Order: sequence, then C-alpha cells, then structure tokens
Amino acid sequence: MSEKDFESLEKVLETYVPEAERREVRRLLFGKELKKLDFPQSAIDAAVEQDFDLKGYVFEASPEQLRPPRTVRVGLIQNKIVLPTDAPVLEQITALHKRVGEMVEVAAMCGVNIVCFQEAWTMPFAFCTREREPWTEFAESAEDGLTTRFCIQSTYYMEGNTGHPVFQTQFGKIAVNICYGRHHPLNWLMYSVNGAEIIFNPSATVGLLSEPMWPIEARNAAIANHCFTCAINRVGTEYFKNEFTSGDGKKAHNDFGHFYGSSYVAAPDGSRSPGLSRTRDGLLVAEMDLNLNRQVADKWNFKMTGRYEMYAEELKKAVQHDFKPNIVKE
Amino acid sequence: MSEKDFESLEKVLETYVPEAERREVRRLLFGKELKKLDFPQSAIDAAVEQDFDLKGYVFEASPEQLRPPRTVRVGLIQNKIVLPTDAPVLEQITALHKRVGEMVEVAAMCGVNIVCFQEAWTMPFAFCTREREPWTEFAESAEDGLTTRFCIQSTYYMEGNTGHPVFQTQFGKIAVNICYGRHHPLNWLMYSVNGAEIIFNPSATVGLLSEPMWPIEARNAAIANHCFTCAINRVGTEYFKNEFTSGDGKKAHNDFGHFYGSSYVAAPDGSRSPGLSRTRDGLLVAEMDLNLNRQVADKWNFKMTGRYEMYAEELKKAVQHDFKPNIVKE
Repeated sequence: MSEKDFESLEKVLETYVPEAERREVRRLLFGKELKKLDFPQSAIDAAVEQDFDLKGYVFEASPEQLRPPRTVRVGLIQNKIVLPTDAPVLEQITALHKRVGEMVEVAAMCGVNIVCFQEAWTMPFAFCTREREPWTEFAESAEDGLTTRFCIQSTYYMEGNTGHPVFQTQFGKIAVNICYGRHHPLNWLMYSVNGAEIIFNPSATVGLLSEPMWPIEARNAAIANHCFTCAINRVGTEYFKNEFTSGDGKKAHNDFGHFYGSSYVAAPDGSRSPGLSRTRDGLLVAEMDLNLNRQVADKWNFKMTGRYEMYAEELKKAVQHDFKPNIVKE
Repeated sequence: MSEKDFESLEKVLETYVPEAERREVRRLLFGKELKKLDFPQSAIDAAVEQDFDLKGYVFEASPEQLRPPRTVRVGLIQNKIVLPTDAPVLEQITALHKRVGEMVEVAAMCGVNIVCFQEAWTMPFAFCTREREPWTEFAESAEDGLTTRFCIQSTYYMEGNTGHPVFQTQFGKIAVNICYGRHHPLNWLMYSVNGAEIIFNPSATVGLLSEPMWPIEARNAAIANHCFTCAINRVGTEYFKNEFTSGDGKKAHNDFGHFYGSSYVAAPDGSRSPGLSRTRDGLLVAEMDLNLNRQVADKWNFKMTGRYEMYAEELKKAVQHDFKPNIVKE
C-alpha cells in the first residue's frame, strides 16, 4: 500500500471495522455523529461527471428561546493542479480557474455561502523548487488580478503587520489563518479574540512529515477557542522540470511529495467531519449553526477561564533579552 | 457495545484492519512507528498477576556528534479506586497506596526514572457530588501528609498565583499542567517558555463529553511546543452513596460517569504512543531521548517563528475593558 494510493482513514474503517465497534471508534476519532447533508441530484451528478469527491455534513446546535439558529454553509475545495508545471503560465492559471470554477458551481448548487480554497490554488506549489522564474509570474494583484476578477471576492492575503483581522460578513465573522500559521496556537487565539466564528486554514502540505499533525492542530484550535475551523489542503503530486533539493541531505527530486488533501471541518464541541480524499479533488460542504460556539463556551468556559492578563505579562517578560525562566532546582 | 466495555481504539484496529492498511492508519493516527520496550519477565508477570495493563515504547532521536542522547524513562499510572466510596477514609487511602505502590514497584523494575499519577489519585473523584464531608478528609498536607510521606516526592500541586514553574531534575526539566489546564494552549506554552522538556497532565475526566478532545489537546501541545507531553487519566466508574446532579437538567445519579483511562505520551514530532486501556488499571512506560525536542525545533521552528512580542501586546490590549476587536466590515 503506497502512501499515494491510500484513499482515507474513513474508508478503511468503513471497509473493515464492524458497525458496533465502528460507532465507538468514530466517537473517539470524530466526536458527535454528524447528519449528512442532502444535495440536489444535479450536484451529485456533476461531482461524478467532473470526477471529484463531494461530501456534506451538518453541525447542529440546540434550539434556543431568544436567538434563532445562525445557520451558514461553508464549502472547502481541494484540487490537484490541472496542467503539467511546465505548461505556459497563463494556460495553467486558466485551467485551474476552469476546474475550480466548475467546483464552485457545484458548491452553489449545494447552497454554500462561503467557499475557501487551498493555499496558492492558482499555481503549482513551486516554492519548493527555490527557483524564481517562471513562478513569480503567477503572482497577481490582490486588487485587480486575474484571479480576483475571477472570484470577485474580498482579499484574504494580508501583509504580516496587520495583526489578526476578522472579516464581518453577512454569514458570520470569519478569519483566515494561512498554512504554516496553523502551527501557532496563538494565531488561532488572536483571531478568536477578535471575534472570529469560523477560521479557515488554506494549506499546502505534503506527506510523511506533517500528516499526523494535520488532524490535530485545526481541531485543537476549534476546541480551545470555541469556534469552527476549516482546514483545507492541496491534493496530488506536482512534477517540476528542473530537479531540486529540500535541504535534507536527500537526492535531488522533481516533486515535493504527495499533497494529501484530507480537508476537514472541526467544531467547538470536539466533533469534526470526515476528511475529503487523500488522492482526489474534493468539495466538502459543512452546514453549521454558529450558535454552537456560544453554547459550548457556556458549557466549557475555556475563553472565560483563560488567564490572558497573566499570559500577556509572562509573554512580555519572556521576550526580554534578560528573561529568567521560572525554574525550580532540586 | 457499551461505552464502558470498549477496550481501546488500538485493539479494534488490531483486530479488524489488515496489516497493509493498518500501517497507514497507524501513521495517520499515531505518527512515526515506535519501538516497543523490552521489560524483564518479572515485571510482565507482576502486571498479569496484579491485573493491570503494562505497555512500553521508545521515542528515539537521531544520534548527534556533540551531544550524547539524553534518555529518560517516564511511567504513567492510571488506576481505579480500590474500595467503595463509602468505606472509611483511611482504608480507602491505604488501599490506594498499596495498589499504586505495587504498580510503582513494577515501574521501578522497568527502569522508570519519573512516574506521574492521575489527578487526585489518593481519593475517589468526589468533587462531582458537591458534598464536603467526608471528602475534605482526603485533603493532606503537601509537606508531610500521608501521601507525601508515602511517595517522598517533591510537591506538584501549587497555588494558582505562582506562574508556570518548571522543575529541574536529574532526568530533565519537567512541569505539571493539572487536569483542566490542558484545555488552555497558553498554559502548555508558558511551561515550555520556562524550559519544560516534559509536561505531565494528570487528569480525571469522564465519558461522552471530553473523550474526543482527549487525544487532541496534549498532543497538539507537544507539537506546538517542541516538547514531550504525558496525559494521564483516571480509570473506572466510582459509585457514591448519596445521589447527586450535574447541573445539566438530568436526573440525579450515583456515579459521575466512566473515567476512560487512555493515558498516552506524545512527542514533538507528532508521534504518540498507543493509549492504555479504557477499562483497566495501567502503567505506560515511555523511554524518550530529550534531544528530539531540539531536533524537531531545528526542523520546524515553531518556537523561533512564534511572534510572542506581538501576542503579548495584542493580549494586553484584549484584556482592557475598552478593547476594540480588529473587525473589517463589508
């Protein structure tokens, strides 16, 4: 069983583990059982015809007397590159726009309000080659570039000196924690402190090194911050014409490794959706009642019990050059 | 399959999933495959005779030229209460001392350097009853109480106003993040900022609510902070004579729920040990080379890239009464 052929954890459990035990296994791995979303037949047919994974789940909250449910549907899209990495740049971009555009159409059929793509979705993940050309040609103006015009969405990519902005939309307060940012629990916290109800994490990550971390980090952030998190990873293996090394002493190679997809949504109550495929393009639709955030906060109180004033003071001390760690010696 | 009868996730995978797929499943769930520790036959026999789970794994680091391996063995002990909760207090304590003492003897046979017990291990988890008597009688002086004299160890339970102390021992720098403290990523971080190489989390937590969070939180902390974490949970179901409620609108009951054990060790590279049993007493021995912390830090750089100065400033603002969250409106 090669790493690239392994379809998904969920598939293996479904194939081999008997129903009674599987229910317990799913509870431990995924939390509360989620209802599946019903999609129109046209959406299901389109996903089959266009050969991508289509999944949908509902995160429910309890009904309340004074607040109506705040239901929103988000779509996570993971996709392979379409053309080889040495095809002309504009053709590569156009092919990706077409492919992802089709998937967005299906998302619309599924009633999705907010869609989030994988990191750097309009290009191959060429950073690994450490070459400049032709990859810098994929860069676009965030204000009026091809892709912005294609999407007609607000910008997600911000400079690193603007703090942790949260975008108030008609579907709730959302934030975007890009790729490597998921490794820092404090990034997630800061978005949450600014009021984020859903935090997206568009990512591009490969193989053996990060895969066991993948189901942990965004999910921990949903738990710790009483919010929803959406982790989206690129899928597929991308071949580059010029071989390159990865600074790990291994031989030069023409691909960065297998991007393992496995996009998922995590909820504040510790539950999560199954992941999309490790090998196929996919659209994951999650319907969530944002009231769940408040309800879980009322039950667990992590945000209320967090000693942020103390942390602020301790961190401030910790970054001083003469910081003395609090170590008790024997 | 009742929740109390479900032995462990690991057992189900072993029973039903074929070897080729199981290897991939284990990689996704547990990370790098760990070598099992060899124990003396006397230790294995003692665990069988005394009816507890005994497991042992090795977390290896790469050999280095200038630093020798810094190998340490830790033992995690999870245990049921021994006598009914209405037995005389001293008899309950003595029975627990005897039981845990036997397990510590086995830990010693296994070459354990540091042992950590579950939270409040010398008593039933009686807080759920909200009664004072006789439970307050289980309280002891941390300096010369029965249990301290029994253990002749340094104190773990500190007042909440002493920050996040780290204890420098001959086996490495260790810290203790007690029970609910595991829900706060910043608690783990602060111990790490103070230099902790192993953070223990002695816990007592039950059933349906927290179990899907259990494998996530301590493991995320090991990843995020480039250190080892040891999560230990109480095991068994404890019956109390007087019924009590849990403030959740449900009927009064005589037990708080099933403490699900499942103690485990997580490493900075995203790998973790299998968990101990959900139903049986257990000793988990983990041998770890503390150099792995530094090696993973060198590879992933989370501690180097954490923008602690910015976080300190943002947190300081966030706790002010006139804090204005950074929200961009449409």
